Order: sequence, then C-alpha cells, then structure tokens
Amino acid sequence: MVAELIAVGTELLLGNIANTDAQILSEKLSALGITVLHHTVVGDNPERLAEALETARRRADIIITTGGLGPTYDDLTKQTICRTFGRELELHQDILEEIRTWFETKLGKRMPENNVQQAMLPVNCTVFDNPVGTAPGCAFQEGGVHVLMLPGPPFECRYMFDNRARQYLEKLTDGVIVSHEIKIFGMGESSVEEALREPMTRLTNPTLAPYAKLNECMVRATAKAETREAAEALLKPLVAQVLETLGDVVYGVDVESLEQVVSAALLERGLTLSAAESCTGGLIAKCMTDLPGASKVFRGGVVSYTNGVKSGILGVPEALLEEQGAVSEPVARAMAEGCRRVCGSDLAVSVTGVAGPESDDRGNEVGTVYIALASDQGTICRKLSCGKGRGRERVRSAAAQNAFDMLRRTLLGLPL
Amino acid sequence: MVAELIAVGTELLLGNIANTDAQILSEKLSALGITVLHHTVVGDNPERLAEALETARRRADIIITTGGLGPTYDDLTKQTICRTFGRELELHQDILEEIRTWFETKLGKRMPENNVQQAMLPVNCTVFDNPVGTAPGCAFQEGGVHVLMLPGPPFECRYMFDNRARQYLEKLTDGVIVSHEIKIFGMGESSVEEALREPMTRLTNPTLAPYAKLNECMVRATAKAETREAAEALLKPLVAQVLETLGDVVYGVDVESLEQVVSAALLERGLTLSAAESCTGGLIAKCMTDLPGASKVFRGGVVSYTNGVKSGILGVPEALLEEQGAVSEPVARAMAEGCRRVCGSDLAVSVTGVAGPESDDRGNEVGTVYIALASDQGTICRKLSCGKGRGRERVRSAAAQNAFDMLRRTLLGLPL
Repeated sequence: MVAELIAVGTELLLGNIANTDAQILSEKLSALGITVLHHTVVGDNPERLAEALETARRRADIIITTGGLGPTYDDLTKQTICRTFGRELELHQDILEEIRTWFETKLGKRMPENNVQQAMLPVNCTVFDNPVGTAPGCAFQEGGVHVLMLPGPPFECRYMFDNRARQYLEKLTDGVIVSHEIKIFGMGESSVEEALREPMTRLTNPTLAPYAKLNECMVRATAKAETREAAEALLKPLVAQVLETLGDVVYGVDVESLEQVVSAALLERGLTLSAAESCTGGLIAKCMTDLPGASKVFRGGVVSYTNGVKSGILGVPEALLEEQGAVSEPVARAMAEGCRRVCGSDLAVSVTGVAGPESDDRGNEVGTVYIALASDQGTICRKLSCGKGRGRERVRSAAAQNAFDMLRRTLLGLPL
Repeated sequence: MVAELIAVGTELLLGNIANTDAQILSEKLSALGITVLHHTVVGDNPERLAEALETARRRADIIITTGGLGPTYDDLTKQTICRTFGRELELHQDILEEIRTWFETKLGKRMPENNVQQAMLPVNCTVFDNPVGTAPGCAFQEGGVHVLMLPGPPFECRYMFDNRARQYLEKLTDGVIVSHEIKIFGMGESSVEEALREPMTRLTNPTLAPYAKLNECMVRATAKAETREAAEALLKPLVAQVLETLGDVVYGVDVESLEQVVSAALLERGLTLSAAESCTGGLIAKCMTDLPGASKVFRGGVVSYTNGVKSGILGVPEALLEEQGAVSEPVARAMAEGCRRVCGSDLAVSVTGVAGPESDDRGNEVGTVYIALASDQGTICRKLSCGKGRGRERVRSAAAQNAFDMLRRTLLGLPL
C-alpha cells in the first residue's frame, strides 16, 4: 500500500518549524509495510490543500494529513477534506464533552466557544480521541482511499498514531517491511558505495542503500515479506555480508551514535570516563550527557579553553605549554592524564586543536587536532588533520567523533 | 515571486531524517521576500521527481531542489532536471580538478572515480562551487522558471544558499528586501503577538511577523523598497516601536543568540567567564566555544556531573552535598564560587538540576534547575521549574538560556 503525507501549516512554509511529523510518521509507516512516496506541505489555504488532496487521491491508497485541526480560524483541514471527498461534518456531542472536561480539569479554565469546532467530525468516520491534547483526529474511506487526519503538534501526532491510527492501518496492510541500519565511522560514503556496489545495484528485496551523515555514514538494509520473521530471514545474510565487507569501521547495527556505543561498552565493563576539552569546548561532555543515565559512566570533565585552566586544574606543566604549545601531542597526553587523576575516572579522553577560523600563533593549521586517551594501560594519542575550509562546527564534531572512535576501539580491543 | 522546494531522497520518505533543508531555505527565502507555497519530498526515483518538477514549473517562478547531487548511483537530481527542462549535461574540467584537489588535500586520498559525476553540470548554468563539500550546485533559467540545485547535507545546503544562491536570487527580485530580526527571551510567542497584534495585522510594508524558537522567540520586521536606504527608513520607526513595546526582554536585533550577546558584552568590558555545569553537562561551554574567538572571554569550565567532581575540583563541601542534595541553591552557589576560583575568571555561572527523564532521589521534579552567578559583587541564584513532560533536551536548553539571560542582565545592569 502506498501512502502520502500532507502537512498543513503556513508556519512550515515560513521555516518557523521543520516538518518533524513527516519524519515520525514515515518511520512508523515503513515499519508497518506501508510505502511512503510523497510528502507535501501546503499552507493554511483551502484551495492549495484541496489541490494537494486531489493529487494525492490519484496516486495513494492512504492519505494522512497532519495539522489544521485546532480551533483557530486558519484550521481548515477537516472542512477542506470533507468538501473534497463529498462528506458532511456533524457534531459529536460526546467529543464535545471530552474537550470541555479537558479544559476544566487539565487546564483549569472554561472551554472557549470556538473549540466547539473541534467536535465537528465527518459523518461515519472512525474517531481518534485525543487524551494528550484537545483536537481529536479521525479516519474514513471513500472510493478506496483511506484518509486519516492527525493533529500537528509532534507529541500529539506521535501519540495518536501509536495509540489510534496504527490499529486502523494494521487492518489494511499485507506484509511488513523491516530495516536495519549499519552505522559506519572512518570510511566515506563513496568508498562504502564502491565496496558494496554489487549488492546495492543488483538487489531488489532486500535492498541496500547508503546515507551520508556529518563525518560518518550508514547503510540501510530493508526487506519486505509476509511476516517479520520472513523479512528478518532475508536480511540476516545481507547484514552479515556488509559487516564482513566493511570490517571494523562498522560501529553498530541499529544504534543511535558512536557515543551511545561507547556509553554501553563502559557500562558493560563497569568503567567510568572523563573528558578534558580544549577546542571541542564541552562538546564531548554534552554528547555523553545527552544520553539519559549518563551519570553511571560519565564522571564529568574540564573545559580547559585557556592555558591557565590546563595548568591550574589539569596540572599540565606550564613549561610544557610554553615549549610545545597548547596544540601538541605532549600537552594532549598531559591533559588526559591530569583529567583522569582529578576526575577519578578509569578512562579520560582529551582534545586540543585548532577549530578555526584561524590558524594558531604557532602556525598549526585549522583542523589540526590531537586526541589522547589515558587509562591504566598508559596513554595513546591520535593526530587529525581534518581539513581547512570545513568550518568550525565540522572540525569540532570530527574531533569529538574521533575521540569516541578511539574509546570504542580501546574498549572493544580493536586496532587503533 | 513564488518558490517551491523539492527535496530528493528516499531517506526522507523512510523517516531517517527530517527535511531540515526545507526549514532552513524557507526561512531564508521569506527574508528575501520570496513566497514559498509548497514543499514536496520525493524519493530517489526519476519518474516521481520528473512529475514533481512538471507540477512545480506550472505553479512556481523558482524551483529549488535539495539532495541527490552526490556521487552515488541514486543521486539522480541533475539528470532528471536536465531531461525535464531539455538541457544537456557537460563535464566541467575545472570543477573536476577542484573535487580531485579537495580529496587529495583535505581528505588526503585519491578521488573515487564515481565522483566524476559531480563535475557534470547543465550546459550554460551558473555554477555554485562548494568549498565545504564535494558536490557543486548550480542554477539555470528555462521558460521563465529558475531552477536551483543545492546539496542535501544541511551544513552544505545552508552554506551554499548564503554564499552562492542568495546572490543569484537577489538579482531576480526587483527592489530590495531588508529584514531585521528582533530576538526575545523571557516572553512567550503568544504574549508577544498579543502585545504587537495591532502593527502585525495592520501593516503591509513594512511587515511584522512572529516566530517561535526553542525556549525563545523573535519578531521579524521586513520592508521592500527601491533602495536599501529607503527600506531601512521604513524599518527604523517600526523596530523602535517594537523595542519600546517589549522592553528588556529583547536581547538584540540581528544577533545570533543570547550567548553571542553575552560574549560581546564580556569582550567590551574586558571580563572573563567560566562555567560549572552539572545537568547541562557542557552545553554552556559548548555554546560559548561555538563562537569564533571565544578564548578572549571564556576561560573554560568544569563539567561536574558527579558529586566527586563537584567536591574534588570545585571544592563544594561534601557535607553540603550530603545535607542539601546536589540539586539545591547552596550547592549551585558553591559550584559557581568554586568555579570562579579554580578557573580564575571574573564571572562564573553554575547549573545544577534534574534534566530527566526521571526525578532525582530527593524528589526534585524533572525541570527543577538552580542557576548561580558569582562575581566580585557576590553570588545570585535563579530557580527554574521548566516543566515536566518537556524532555531532556528542552530542560537542558532552557537551563543554558537562563544562565545566559542572567549573565546578560548582570553585565548590562538590567533588572534580574
């Protein structure tokens, strides 16, 4: 079955918000075996919405709209859909009571009169009540096309899909689609594609496709079958082949990020980490603490952006800073060792380098970065030259990702 | 002029990534006075892309595609656009050399042969070279419709728009459009709208429109005129009116962020800052060091994610941590004072709180955050209750923004 997503909202066309509903729904639909072929965004404009609906009904079995169900004057989705598909709207007294109760108990105020509109729904529709907001959604079928209306706020959209729309859609589909994401660091998208060209171009089910991310990339393997088990059986040898071809540049399958892999490896081994950061300026600590439960493995760190902090807190000898310069291998090593000591962690990683936009006063070019990792096994160091003209953000992100890569390789006993 | 954005990429339809390019470009186009009426997303499929192009050329003056310019087999944007608009592709030897040089000097490796494709561009196009990636973009005009092709990775897309596509588009619009962005922290979008409803609904040139951002908002004033001077003359009284109406919740006009304002205020006064971060885990340091030249004002900081680091490095008394708990006003104050001492900075800010997903073991709810600011004038503290159900990322970001707000108000002598 083919689905099309239509998001309604002028705020999307003004760039005020991104269309995250489309991302959320696409991922969930593809897991249900429903193929999404188009996303469309239109503003709060009945004519353009009607045009988008007419186009969608010609090419999709399922149309899902997001947004435009609220009580304000520009929320026109239901009215326009009903006009396009030739349905009447009718007042649902029970929904009206629910909305009134929501206002009184959850928000502690009287329901404004224009919210009555939210209880107007198409005749003979399946109602999706909304316990996490006021706008209910709904679905109906007309001429073989299923139309589902979901609220715009991502939290409500996600909730209503998972708890209401999913059951409606599961009855319509045959078969499931299963995907696995093979995450790669240390090999570029074109080299990955070169290595896997044969299966990528030959295969139709399962399929294999490459995706570039900032400083890393991934390959997605996808299979369609009657059952999840059958799809997994198709995927198993393919994923194994990719892992064998690419080797240890693959840092995980179906994992979020390098730092998540590092965090899990630390937790499994009962080890703790700290970070001494110069040019990354807190980015490594931020990435580690983005993960819930970080305090089990991450003790903290020092952002030693100036030499005073490098010597004062981390104990890097002033003479070393003077002789070698802050951006040097000996200083990186001393930072990691000092950080491990003052934070009392099993491992400590350090980063010192030139993020740009200008070279440092010792002539180190932008993108020159030293990363050290101290443990009870001693200290190792990696030097990066991650490129001029790549921008401060990319240099910093490359430095952090390389630090996580060194940690992963050290923790898992892989070659560095 | 009316623009339509077409994003190309199966990864968007699978929900792998959100269409952030559309958001970035929509915001920038609207600032140029170009109206965006549709966003469309199609997969790596030449037929559906061709269909989307045919539809777009009937209803838009400007078509901007994002994605599908890379070297892999599924990057079909240029070929499909050329077929649709009846153009040939030709090899640009100079671009090929640039890409080859990029690989050799920036990445230190041989260019894979499939990257030759990236140097194939439509005959008689304006080339947008890409110093931050390998895929160049381009633009041409055919039958009154301008077609612009930009790379998919958001960093490259943003860079190429700002540095290449913008100039191309500015020549198409008659007159100039000038915008000023009035940035606001500490007043919600609906209150801002209420305060400025009259000019927002009445004015047509200049115009005034509100935008919500994560934990903050802004108002954009836009004027169109024959010259930049004439546009500025229209904007001047309007911007003054907004500043007078909103007062000191406005933290700047045409500035990037609160931290940029703080950084400039520190620089002007010759003062330095450090940060002791618990629940923000390095986010404040990261924001400060995102800014080039940060080392002039930011000495560094301590990510004291565990009590051991709070006492060991910052000197927070263990008895205080024991009695009051890590999430408390006395601990926040001690963290800021300790950080100021060990980093040797004029000012130090500290954050301790519960980012979630769970309450802490003393029953502090998610979103409870204490922020302290130490200086030679003493230490002040702000308590936030930034809400259950808002998610870890929003709590952390609200905490960091409040810290910057306290710094701004202290540095500028505004009420706290």
